[in-house]
Amino acid sequence: MSAPLNDFSRLCIHTITTKPWNVEEAISHYAAAGVKGITVWRQALEGRSSRAVQKTIADHGLTTVSLCRGGFFPGTTAEARQDAIDDNRRCIDQAVELGAPLIVLVCGAVPGMPLTEARGQIQDGLAAVLPHAAAARIKLAIEPLHPMYASSRSAVNTVAQARALCHALPSPWLGIALDVYHVWWDESLEEEIKACGREKTLFAFHLCDWRTPTLDLLNDRGLMGEGCIPLRQIRGWVEQAGFSGFNEVEIFSERLWASDQAQFLEAIKTAYLHHC
Amino acid sequence: MSAPLNDFSRLCIHTITTKPWNVEEAISHYAAAGVKGITVWRQALEGRSSRAVQKTIADHGLTTVSLCRGGFFPGTTAEARQDAIDDNRRCIDQAVELGAPLIVLVCGAVPGMPLTEARGQIQDGLAAVLPHAAAARIKLAIEPLHPMYASSRSAVNTVAQARALCHALPSPWLGIALDVYHVWWDESLEEEIKACGREKTLFAFHLCDWRTPTLDLLNDRGLMGEGCIPLRQIRGWVEQAGFSGFNEVEIFSERLWASDQAQFLEAIKTAYLHHC
Repeated sequence: MSAPLNDFSRLCIHTITTKPWNVEEAISHYAAAGVKGITVWRQALEGRSSRAVQKTIADHGLTTVSLCRGGFFPGTTAEARQDAIDDNRRCIDQAVELGAPLIVLVCGAVPGMPLTEARGQIQDGLAAVLPHAAAARIKLAIEPLHPMYASSRSAVNTVAQARALCHALPSPWLGIALDVYHVWWDESLEEEIKACGREKTLFAFHLCDWRTPTLDLLNDRGLMGEGCIPLRQIRGWVEQAGFSGFNEVEIFSERLWASDQAQFLEAIKTAYLHHC
Repeated sequence: MSAPLNDFSRLCIHTITTKPWNVEEAISHYAAAGVKGITVWRQALEGRSSRAVQKTIADHGLTTVSLCRGGFFPGTTAEARQDAIDDNRRCIDQAVELGAPLIVLVCGAVPGMPLTEARGQIQDGLAAVLPHAAAARIKLAIEPLHPMYASSRSAVNTVAQARALCHALPSPWLGIALDVYHVWWDESLEEEIKACGREKTLFAFHLCDWRTPTLDLLNDRGLMGEGCIPLRQIRGWVEQAGFSGFNEVEIFSERLWASDQAQFLEAIKTAYLHHC
């Protein structure tokens, strides 16, 4: 168990967490609140120059932690799979412009496609984009998603599966984004995190909480402390595995998006110190 | 991959699947439709004599496949855990009266209780009730539940975890109920089913489907064929592992409960032949 966090030097917030704010509002509010890192979601960049957003982030003294998200490799046609590869290459270029060292990958799934096939297509897609990522010096982080998303968002549902992809495609530019929401239930989590540490693939760490009951599969995540995830224990495992990067708060919640976002930002800071 | 099913000799339906019907209506409709097995949910027995229900089932030529459900062992106090043990013993007595050879166990969880602790309490609870089950000659079947229920319904979330409990408490009266909804995403599923076959712990097999999107964590299961689960493939693995019992249709769905239940019963039969 790690000691409580006592400052915000490693606090990063995902723009999606405060979705009602556009990216300029998010940057401004985060900086004013003393938050040090920002992970930008691609939709927040729509209609904007990534370079201009990068400059705004830098002008506010923030660090761009990652660009969220690439992936979605499986497709039912060769054309769809090539489109995904092309889009991931554009995403890598966008990360360069944004000054983001890392892209989070939600690897994708197609309802009804056998999971073994989807997993194979994911590996093929990763293999196709890795050279572009390496040339651009952008890290790609496979995010294992909760098994409840296996048919819709990612056929990679455990840290073990993400590690197997890293073994199959060894590269210093391929690793894992660990989100507590997706993996907290896994009895092998501590061992898997240790293995990621040994293999130097633990690239990112995402925080939120699991509410009981969870009212929606997608958009009912909890603020840290509102749920049952042993956040401090998992952070301890992550840090013992050598991770010293940002703790990224990534919360999708209709309930919290409907609240006053400035107050919510303060609540995030409080929860970060008390529960993480 | 098994051959398609071509009759209803192994079709069993859970009373919860047609929740709008009381147990007498369910028995009568299932028998008239040529369904051969029935799994009775405990709430369907409320205010009734289990022996009388057993007689009605037998009079209609149906086989009682199981009583659903026991379990829910973890509790925050010793008293709560003892209450659960007592209730499971009553459930065993009720199974005897009902002529049900097996009880399905949803093992339980307490939001915020560490999963390792919940899993330990589950093992203790099973150990406490197994002698009563053995004396009554009632099988107990641990149902691994989908990880999305880890905080609320069961801290046993994979077949591997259920098998570990069977290893810890070796008894011919303790085994596993395999529900496709909970385990279809697991990349080790085929191997785990084989292991259950070797270990002679595959006690029950439950069918439904996973819809995309799933709109509710509890009550949005699909009729077979409405979703993405490779039902026939999994049935093949189960049968290769030596299972020759009933194929039990267990669907919780507000949408389907709101439909005409007689038509739904016909749809179950059609789906059973076409998709399972």
